Amino acid sequence: MPKISNRGANMPASPIRKLVPFADAAKKRGTKIYHLNIGQPDIKTPKAAFQAITDANLEVLSYSPSEGYEWYRDKISEYYDRVGVKIDSSEIIVTSGASEAISFVMNSCFDPGDEIIVPEPFYANYNGFSRSGNVVVKPITASIEDGFGLPPMENFEMEITPKTKAILICNPSNPTGYLYSKEELEVLRNIALKHDLYLMVDEVYREFVYEGQEHTSVLALDGLDEHAIVFDSVSKRYSACGARIGMIISRNKAMMSTALKFAQARLSPPTLGQVMGAAMVDVPQSFIDASISEYDKRRKVCIERLQKMDGVVCPNPRGAFYLFVKFPVDSTEDFCKWLLEEFSLNGETVMMAPGAGFYSTEGLGLQEARIAYVLNTDDLHKAMDCLEEALKTYPGRK
Amino acid sequence: MPKISNRGANMPASPIRKLVPFADAAKKRGTKIYHLNIGQPDIKTPKAAFQAITDANLEVLSYSPSEGYEWYRDKISEYYDRVGVKIDSSEIIVTSGASEAISFVMNSCFDPGDEIIVPEPFYANYNGFSRSGNVVVKPITASIEDGFGLPPMENFEMEITPKTKAILICNPSNPTGYLYSKEELEVLRNIALKHDLYLMVDEVYREFVYEGQEHTSVLALDGLDEHAIVFDSVSKRYSACGARIGMIISRNKAMMSTALKFAQARLSPPTLGQVMGAAMVDVPQSFIDASISEYDKRRKVCIERLQKMDGVVCPNPRGAFYLFVKFPVDSTEDFCKWLLEEFSLNGETVMMAPGAGFYSTEGLGLQEARIAYVLNTDDLHKAMDCLEEALKTYPGRK
Repeated sequence: MPKISNRGANMPASPIRKLVPFADAAKKRGTKIYHLNIGQPDIKTPKAAFQAITDANLEVLSYSPSEGYEWYRDKISEYYDRVGVKIDSSEIIVTSGASEAISFVMNSCFDPGDEIIVPEPFYANYNGFSRSGNVVVKPITASIEDGFGLPPMENFEMEITPKTKAILICNPSNPTGYLYSKEELEVLRNIALKHDLYLMVDEVYREFVYEGQEHTSVLALDGLDEHAIVFDSVSKRYSACGARIGMIISRNKAMMSTALKFAQARLSPPTLGQVMGAAMVDVPQSFIDASISEYDKRRKVCIERLQKMDGVVCPNPRGAFYLFVKFPVDSTEDFCKWLLEEFSLNGETVMMAPGAGFYSTEGLGLQEARIAYVLNTDDLHKAMDCLEEALKTYPGRK
Repeated sequence: MPKISNRGANMPASPIRKLVPFADAAKKRGTKIYHLNIGQPDIKTPKAAFQAITDANLEVLSYSPSEGYEWYRDKISEYYDRVGVKIDSSEIIVTSGASEAISFVMNSCFDPGDEIIVPEPFYANYNGFSRSGNVVVKPITASIEDGFGLPPMENFEMEITPKTKAILICNPSNPTGYLYSKEELEVLRNIALKHDLYLMVDEVYREFVYEGQEHTSVLALDGLDEHAIVFDSVSKRYSACGARIGMIISRNKAMMSTALKFAQARLSPPTLGQVMGAAMVDVPQSFIDASISEYDKRRKVCIERLQKMDGVVCPNPRGAFYLFVKFPVDSTEDFCKWLLEEFSLNGETVMMAPGAGFYSTEGLGLQEARIAYVLNTDDLHKAMDCLEEALKTYPGRK
């Protein structure tokens, strides 16, 4: 039998998906599962987006240009204008989700063995994209005690080698919900400029900030035109994950023309997703405002409930729709499995994403788990009831 | 300024897209262009596919499972049953176009420096996917005199080294239109089994065969369960390129579970594309039959016209919708550019894909070009008029 590759063998399974077989078994037994494991919003996609497909009345569902339709990139530019960032349509490449945006940028900026510095815990799939490009992730550990804020500049500089090509953050962060301040971004800017590194920022949760905070895009900082690369997506903003529309935004022309070659090799991003995407830029701000206020309610429910549970450490993050929580258990991997295999409260249980998969350093995050608060508050209360009860009876309780 | 990667710098521009700026300039001057450069069918996408989106009446456009919806994979399995191949839905991973299928398989089967043997000329983007995975393409040259048939087994065996992991063909072939016979596939099977190599076959043009020929899927050969990997797509079959729905089909469980990890890292293929894809499996065979008979008319027009042109060598391939043609010119790269920049007949000209980009061996294909016969016969006649006239006046004529 022909062998699989080492990069394939070493590719980590997604912490978001690896418990799926246990969840499927639980469902077969009739257990209802509250899915806090995946950032799949339950908010209704704007009807206007579906209507745009009907209105387009396409006869041939053809390829779009590899960089995306110009009329769609113009709409993206219009959206960025509204969030205070001037971006020309030529500084945008439309991709199949932000995932593909990350892949193209990895290929464009890194050779095998090159290094990328990422504060951990980080979005687990960064590991996957690095692995497929044979890029080495150098983690800088952020701590739950500091609410996962930016580690000190020295920690970054200690990890920089001649092979370091970039720093990558997610702002606000998946999986911690942490919102980086303008000052923290400026610290990163100084490191990037001093060492001539790309500063890559995943801003797909840009809109989701709470408690009167403001999001600063790395594209709004001065002096980073050659260094800043943003990954963006319509998935969370408009609850349209299945559209598979993401984008690379950068003013660095050499990097963008290289990324375009990778984009051309796969021909085209989804055509209907772009039709929807253009219509979604015209969705009134009230749609997004309503989403934010709904998520904020959910955030408060989860934080309040979790902070009351004995031994649980839950920071108070101001962004995205995730909480990264420490549980008084031997291993959240085992705890999450046990929740699916052994536990139920009134026929219901909870699925979370175990924390270790969001760290690159071996042995970290073993007691932590990511919670995506993407359910309505009634369901979240029931999910919290389950967790509360489970912590009382879990045999691996510490 | 931070540097771009070597793999990015060395990534070839797509021969299908690289002349686009010249075409855009020609269009601005008011010249009408017959696009024979890209395999974008003009056949109308089945209305039932669009109707399926309306009927689905989705409220939330959510992620699908990473491997694709089970109900869609069941439909794919039903389709394969009709073409005489037994495939279980667990042997299918749905991807964003066949392009993504190739990427996942490259990542799953090859480490940087590993080698893949591909008869050339080959689909130019295989080069791109290899480059992003740092995989080395070892070409086996097929000749226009043999109509681009399978080169002798010895030529393959001469190129096999300990680093060789796979042989890849496209059947019927993009860019040559060549349809590999069952006997030729059996030759490849023997090589694959003898040297324990993957045998990867891109079968996206499976339906498009002419002159009463039959297509043999590599999945229908005995003994290859661990070795055969098929790339497939709805793009050409149903004229739905913009749906971005492709698939990996293989009975090799280790490879498929590795590919699934890469699929999980990018979360999900397009949701609406799968809704359309399922409906398209139910489109009556008459839709595909009508497409085939329309392409066959076009094929005949092009071959007949091209073979009459002085100095032009045009084989008579029996598959796909491409011709790979030799022109009596110094360089088809220059000729194709000249067609866009300098030439017009009644305000019209032709765009083709220069041949060199479909070869991996430096210096080959310089007089060849790929023609996609994706226009109606009236337009094709006019395009052939242009070519005929252009060859009379082109200053680089040989």
